[in-house]
Amino acid sequence: MSDEVMRLETDDDLKDFAFGASFLAAGGGGDPYVGRLMLKQQVTRGKRVTVVPHDQVPDDAFIVSVATMGAPTVMIERIPSAEATVKSLEAVEQLSGRKVTHICGVEVGGINGTLPMVTGAITGLPVIDGDGMGRAFPELQMVTFGIGGVKASPVVLQNEVGDKVAIWGRDNTLSERLARAIVVDMKGMAQIALYPMTGAEFRETCVPATMSLAKRVGTAARLALAASEDPAEAILDLLNNESPPRFAKALFSGKIIDLKRETRRGFAVGEVILDSIDGRSRAVITFQNEFLTIAIDGRIVAMVPDIITLIDFESAAPLTTDRLRYGQRLRVMGVQISDILRTPAALGICGPRAFGLGFDFTPIEQLAS
Amino acid sequence: MSDEVMRLETDDDLKDFAFGASFLAAGGGGDPYVGRLMLKQQVTRGKRVTVVPHDQVPDDAFIVSVATMGAPTVMIERIPSAEATVKSLEAVEQLSGRKVTHICGVEVGGINGTLPMVTGAITGLPVIDGDGMGRAFPELQMVTFGIGGVKASPVVLQNEVGDKVAIWGRDNTLSERLARAIVVDMKGMAQIALYPMTGAEFRETCVPATMSLAKRVGTAARLALAASEDPAEAILDLLNNESPPRFAKALFSGKIIDLKRETRRGFAVGEVILDSIDGRSRAVITFQNEFLTIAIDGRIVAMVPDIITLIDFESAAPLTTDRLRYGQRLRVMGVQISDILRTPAALGICGPRAFGLGFDFTPIEQLAS
Repeated sequence: MSDEVMRLETDDDLKDFAFGASFLAAGGGGDPYVGRLMLKQQVTRGKRVTVVPHDQVPDDAFIVSVATMGAPTVMIERIPSAEATVKSLEAVEQLSGRKVTHICGVEVGGINGTLPMVTGAITGLPVIDGDGMGRAFPELQMVTFGIGGVKASPVVLQNEVGDKVAIWGRDNTLSERLARAIVVDMKGMAQIALYPMTGAEFRETCVPATMSLAKRVGTAARLALAASEDPAEAILDLLNNESPPRFAKALFSGKIIDLKRETRRGFAVGEVILDSIDGRSRAVITFQNEFLTIAIDGRIVAMVPDIITLIDFESAAPLTTDRLRYGQRLRVMGVQISDILRTPAALGICGPRAFGLGFDFTPIEQLAS
Repeated sequence: MSDEVMRLETDDDLKDFAFGASFLAAGGGGDPYVGRLMLKQQVTRGKRVTVVPHDQVPDDAFIVSVATMGAPTVMIERIPSAEATVKSLEAVEQLSGRKVTHICGVEVGGINGTLPMVTGAITGLPVIDGDGMGRAFPELQMVTFGIGGVKASPVVLQNEVGDKVAIWGRDNTLSERLARAIVVDMKGMAQIALYPMTGAEFRETCVPATMSLAKRVGTAARLALAASEDPAEAILDLLNNESPPRFAKALFSGKIIDLKRETRRGFAVGEVILDSIDGRSRAVITFQNEFLTIAIDGRIVAMVPDIITLIDFESAAPLTTDRLRYGQRLRVMGVQISDILRTPAALGICGPRAFGLGFDFTPIEQLAS
C-alpha cells in the first residue's frame, strides 16, 4: 500500500477537499474557498503535498498542528499568511528543541483543514490524515489531543508583520484564553502552531482519516452533480457506508424566515429559523461559530458535538454561519461524530453544556432515527 | 574600591531605599511599601543583595531586567509574586540560551526599584546600580535600553498560578501592546523579565547609579527628620550637589482642592489642583500613572520626562497618584532628569507628545529657574 492516501493536485482534487472540509465544519471553520486558493497557489508553483495515514506515523515522530485563529468576521476579510504559519511552526520546533517530522490539523473543518496542506506543500513535510476534531470547533482546548492529555503549549501565535507570542497556559483552556487576548490585539487574526506531540500520542488521541474523508465527501457530491443526481443523497450514501458506518441524515429542508446573529466575546452567536416549503414544519437552529442544535417543531433532533451542516438545496454547497441570508432555500444535514468525541471527558469540553446549553448530550442516531 | 555600592540590610537601609525609589517614581511605580516588605522577607531569611556599579559590569555579562507589570489599581491590591519573577527570569535565560550573570531594573521608581533587589536576594545574582528610566514610566518601550537600540523581547510574563507567555514584538512598542493584552487577561498583573542584553549594551544605554541615588535620597530625608530639619531641603541639597549637579526645586506648596481621576486603557489618568495656603496661587498637575505636567497660575514649570513628585508637607513621604486625597497638604518637587532621556529619540518615546500633549519638551531648569 502506498503511503499516499489522498492526491491534491488537480483543480477537482482541491475543490473536492475544500467542499468536504466545509461540509464537516458544521457552519464554522472560516471560508474554505480561501484555503483552496492558498493551496492552489502552492500547487501552481509545482509544490506537492504528501498525506500519510495516521497508523503509519512512527512512535517517535514529532508532530505539530497548525491553524489560523481569529474571529469569523475577520477571517472572511483577510487571507491567512502561509509564511507566518511556517514561522509559527518553526518557533514551536525551536522552543521544543525537536525537529518537526509531520504536520497535522487541529480541525478538518473549513480553512483549518486546508492550512496544514498549504504548510506541508511549502515545507515539504508530510501531513497526517487525521485531526483533533473531525469537524470544526471555536476554541483550541476543544481538541481530542488535549482531551487525551496532550498539552497545547507552547502555543505560538505569529502575524504577518513579524510579531510572535508563545504561550504556556497552566492548562489548555488557559492557553486558549491568553491566545484569544493576543488574537484580539493582533487585529483579529493570527497564525498558530500548537499541540506538539509524538507519533504515539497522535495515534492515540486523533480522529483518524478525516482529511481523506473530506475529499471523498467532495468527490461524491461533484460526481452526483455531474450525473444529474442528488449530491446530498450521494454524501449520505458515502457516510452510511463508511467502516464503521456513520449515521447521517437529511434532517430538514426549507427556507430561512428569520436570522439573529451577534458578535459576543469574538464569537458569532445566533439562531436561524427555517420553515418547510409547505409551511407545516419549522426548524430552529442555534449556533456559536458552528451550529449547536437543531429543533424541529420544538423537538431537538441533533446537537453538538454531532455535526449539523446547512447546504444549498440545489448544489449541496455547505454554508458557513456568516453566509446565511434571509430567504435561502437549504437542507440541514446531520452526521454522527466519532466516538472519541462522545466520551464523558470529551463531552465535558465540547458537549452541549460546554456551550452553555442546559442539557446533556444525546446521540443523533437516537434523536433522529 | 569595593564592588558593593549600597548596603540593603537594616530596616533603615530598606526604608531609605524604598523612600527614594518612591520619590524618583514621579507618582507612579506602585507601592514601594510592598516592595520593601518583600525585600525584608528575604533579608530576614538571611538572604543578601549584592549591588554592583554599572561601570564594573564586564562587556560579555548577560543581563536581564525584571519588573511587575499591571494596572496601578490592581498593583495596590496584590503582592507581586517573587517566585513568578524568578520563573520569568529563568524563562528568558532558557529562550536566550545564555546564563544570566546580572539582574537590573527597567525603572528605579516605585516597586520596580525594589523588585530586582528581591530577585537578586533569592537568586544570589548581583544587581546593577542603574536602570532604564531613572524614574518610573507607564510603558515598557519607555526605557533607555530600548531607546538605545536594545530589543525588549523576549518579554516573558508569568503569573503565580503557572501561566507563562513569551512575546517577540516587531518592535518594543508592539511588545508593550501585546504584553498589556496578556496582563489584562492575567487579572491585571504579571511578573515580567525582559530586555536581555550584554554588559556592553547595558553600560551604553543605562541611566547609571540610580539605585544608590534612591537610597541616598531616603537617607537624607530620614536624617533631616531625625535632626528636626526640613527633609525636602535635605533632598534638594543632595540632588543639587550631585556630580554632575541636578537642577531640583520645590515648585509649589499647597492643599488639594480638586482631583479628577479615571481609568483609561488600564492607566490612571487625571488632574489634581492645589491652592497655596494663602489662596493667591494655584497649581494644576496632570498625570497618566506618573505626573506629566505642573502649571502654576497657568504657566507650565515642569514637564515629563523631568521628575515631578508630590510629597507630604511634614514628612516628605512621596505620594503615588492613587494615594492623593482632597484636602492633603503637599509640596511639589521638580527634578531634572538624566540627559539620556532628553535626546530627540528619547523624547519621541517618553516626551510630552508621547503622552498626547500638544507641545515639545522644555527643560525644568529653563522653566522653573
